[in-house]
Amino acid sequence: MSAGPESLENIYEGYLDCLNRKDWQNLSQFVAVDVRHNGRPFGLSGYREMLEGDFRAIPDLRFHAELVVANPPMLGCRLVFDCTPVGELFGRPVNRRRVRFDEHVFYHFENGLIAEVWSIIDQAAIGRQLSGPEPA
Amino acid sequence: MSAGPESLENIYEGYLDCLNRKDWQNLSQFVAVDVRHNGRPFGLSGYREMLEGDFRAIPDLRFHAELVVANPPMLGCRLVFDCTPVGELFGRPVNRRRVRFDEHVFYHFENGLIAEVWSIIDQAAIGRQLSGPEPA
Repeated sequence: MSAGPESLENIYEGYLDCLNRKDWQNLSQFVAVDVRHNGRPFGLSGYREMLEGDFRAIPDLRFHAELVVANPPMLGCRLVFDCTPVGELFGRPVNRRRVRFDEHVFYHFENGLIAEVWSIIDQAAIGRQLSGPEPA
Repeated sequence: MSAGPESLENIYEGYLDCLNRKDWQNLSQFVAVDVRHNGRPFGLSGYREMLEGDFRAIPDLRFHAELVVANPPMLGCRLVFDCTPVGELFGRPVNRRRVRFDEHVFYHFENGLIAEVWSIIDQAAIGRQLSGPEPA
């Protein structure tokens, strides 16, 4: 099976929609059973646990792709988050303040499924936004 | 002018080679005069100053692309750094310790030149590596 850049973008759009619906039953339509994340052999179940944890920490989490570059079997994306984490995030006490931060992530697809992920989140941006007073 | 994915990759390879040679005279062959970096209107001179500052902070700095995704007019890259910064880096006292960290960066090209850059550096990885003792 060989997907062009446009169909890979379509698959990725479906993946983000799956995350935003928290439709974990269908995650396997987009993520390989032996998926790796930043070098860690998470597998599908570990990957799902990571995402479920993300939504517990950030109940209003929403994945929004600002920029997508696809060239099969690779896809890169700039994700922009605008959300209110309930407690700590990356060790920083966010406590229901609204924060905006970006993630730059690359995916390697195999047979139309995400097989490997390399992600960097702009944690420093969150720290800068927490320098103000806490909300009342 | 319209460049395909492969030629954009070739241009980018030339850009990284230009940086690694510190060939600032030829930077304008790759970077637009009104280039923007993470939303800041640096322009070519400000962009060059940023790079010269990077090399002052990290004399053995070397740009190595581990992963490139090109789909004109966009290109994404995972850069992997393995270097020994002389003093502070991102506010962290590195002091000639060897650190490895990654940068995920997206470029928008216009007329074959880098016109806009969105970059995230994995600063947290540097912090983790500095938790050990300083070198003698």
